Amino acid sequence: MTSILNTVTLPTLLLDEQKCRRNIQRMADRALKYNVRLRPHFKTHQSRQIAGWFREAGINCITVSSLKMAEYFAADGWDDITVAFPVNVLEHERINRLARRIRLNLLVAGADGAGLLSSVLKYPVRVWMKIDAGTGRTGLLPGDREAITSILEGVEDSDKMSFSGFLTHAGHSYSCRSRDEILRVHLESVTLLASLAEDYRSAWPAIEISTGDTPTCSVADDFSTVDEIRPGNFVFFDLMQAVIGSCSKQDIAVAVACPVVAKHSDRNEIILYGGAIHFARDSIVIGGGKTIYGELVQVSGESWGEPLAGCYLSKLSQEHGTLKVTEELFRQINVGDVVAIIPVHSCMTANLLAGYTTLSGERIDYFDFRKDYLEG
Amino acid sequence: MTSILNTVTLPTLLLDEQKCRRNIQRMADRALKYNVRLRPHFKTHQSRQIAGWFREAGINCITVSSLKMAEYFAADGWDDITVAFPVNVLEHERINRLARRIRLNLLVAGADGAGLLSSVLKYPVRVWMKIDAGTGRTGLLPGDREAITSILEGVEDSDKMSFSGFLTHAGHSYSCRSRDEILRVHLESVTLLASLAEDYRSAWPAIEISTGDTPTCSVADDFSTVDEIRPGNFVFFDLMQAVIGSCSKQDIAVAVACPVVAKHSDRNEIILYGGAIHFARDSIVIGGGKTIYGELVQVSGESWGEPLAGCYLSKLSQEHGTLKVTEELFRQINVGDVVAIIPVHSCMTANLLAGYTTLSGERIDYFDFRKDYLEG
Repeated sequence: MTSILNTVTLPTLLLDEQKCRRNIQRMADRALKYNVRLRPHFKTHQSRQIAGWFREAGINCITVSSLKMAEYFAADGWDDITVAFPVNVLEHERINRLARRIRLNLLVAGADGAGLLSSVLKYPVRVWMKIDAGTGRTGLLPGDREAITSILEGVEDSDKMSFSGFLTHAGHSYSCRSRDEILRVHLESVTLLASLAEDYRSAWPAIEISTGDTPTCSVADDFSTVDEIRPGNFVFFDLMQAVIGSCSKQDIAVAVACPVVAKHSDRNEIILYGGAIHFARDSIVIGGGKTIYGELVQVSGESWGEPLAGCYLSKLSQEHGTLKVTEELFRQINVGDVVAIIPVHSCMTANLLAGYTTLSGERIDYFDFRKDYLEG
Repeated sequence: MTSILNTVTLPTLLLDEQKCRRNIQRMADRALKYNVRLRPHFKTHQSRQIAGWFREAGINCITVSSLKMAEYFAADGWDDITVAFPVNVLEHERINRLARRIRLNLLVAGADGAGLLSSVLKYPVRVWMKIDAGTGRTGLLPGDREAITSILEGVEDSDKMSFSGFLTHAGHSYSCRSRDEILRVHLESVTLLASLAEDYRSAWPAIEISTGDTPTCSVADDFSTVDEIRPGNFVFFDLMQAVIGSCSKQDIAVAVACPVVAKHSDRNEIILYGGAIHFARDSIVIGGGKTIYGELVQVSGESWGEPLAGCYLSKLSQEHGTLKVTEELFRQINVGDVVAIIPVHSCMTANLLAGYTTLSGERIDYFDFRKDYLEG
């Protein structure tokens, strides 16, 4: 195994820039084709450089998962940002700092949050109402018209808030295991949202609908009632998305390079420097009911191939990974080598490794939640 | 809920300094009582300030999980450090930089690693041989005397390596659920190690035995064949350790303060700003077969109490945590409040939050793997 792996000495997140740019372009093309605004979720990559590739693909509005992350991208010139998390009013200073500079879009998930937000705002923001379209995590239930109307009226009464529309995240698409199941989740959630918006459109004609999770945005082909999509994971994809049916394994744009530190010939196991503090503990179940944490790929030149059959991360402890391999591979891989593993959940893996190395050796920065990016 | 929580605006790792110092002192006292060297594993806290509390308790040698972490503590004056992970020879520059300055103790887990290490060393190091005493992760099997002897002879032949002894980590103690089970694991692993060392003591009289995991070190009372213990988690403990039987919940010295962002009265669920990127995904199973990720405690003044019955983190997504509470607590907790949750696995939680706030408001630093701490 040659090229970039020869430069690696520690668990390192490799990025295939070509695959990544192709994933971005494909989603941008879909948005154009289906006439929806693409407001990609940047929490997956959390990198100003990768953000630049989105800009090249014509993207000018984004989604993030925290106000600090909004500051990171705002400092880089992004001026239309949605924080897709129920607004945390304890961060009112950050909210106002951002609202003063950019078009800031916030989420309210209930009457309490909306009221508190109204009381702390010094600059105008746009407000989306989070709707629970079946995930059961948070957001207003579409049937709870009384609460929805009351929040809408409260927003309308405030001179700092203007109402954008209804937003949902069909997170239950993550339990899908086929294209048909994803399409069913998509149809259900957009139908719910469309019917809700319809009821309010006479009073609020500009109401929009924002949906977005990588599975539905990657495979659905009817967005006629949707104004905006906010997928994020598609920038890299991962084994989980391949299992769900959002992508093929060939689309996965990140892999973790791990030094080999020990071998166990009695059980064809290779011990990697690469554990739960690098991969996180997300897992998938493969044939035979095995729970796995990643799959081995072979890096050659500026790319890597399909996962090698029968070679997967079977166990993770804090720093160790146990790689099960075939007998043939076991003979080829030695202590002191570096192997590449595509992860189950790229968002979590990127969050832990906090930076990328492209296959041509370029270092790509990652947001640091310990820093402050905007002053005043 | 008052005091420190009023200063929190983001998911924040709270540290009860009193409990932490008590945990440190208790383990130091045990080591003294049982006449073993305490070489605590610092990967749990990864903080120079907390390391200082160990120094005050008379500790002068430590364990870490990576060479970079060794550099972080070496730069702070720690000069006898074991890196308790099969040596990664790709980091030979870091190995030599450390070996030149401090007493560096490395682990070999097989003949390949030992041979490669010998070929890169420029300065003397001490070598421990990793023995698999039943965990089935890595290390030589005690019965594999041929390989063990061959590695020992290889170490002896090198003018840069000297052999310290046999080291094990009885990681399978983590599946124990009572004091008796822990004691059984302890007895088995120390007996294996003692018999192994006995066989080599005529040729290598100074051979030592190093064991160490928080469960066995917290409850066992026979260390007569052991020279050194390396527990780490005990500095904070966590819900997992309480379930195993290593501690009581009153001993847990860290809690995550999380802003409340939404409430769902139909299901007595409170949505917290605090998810898998703050807690990690480690879980325990409680009565009724429920999988949980943390338990609610009430902070008052400079401490917190026992977990509140029936109040636990029932779900985690990337940034959201779902807190199930009793009806009574549901009425008391409001959006905009901050609640405190004791975590399932304090090592992983600390790794993600990367810094502490004591209950008196002091900020405590955490190792940053992105920085270099030693030059040249």
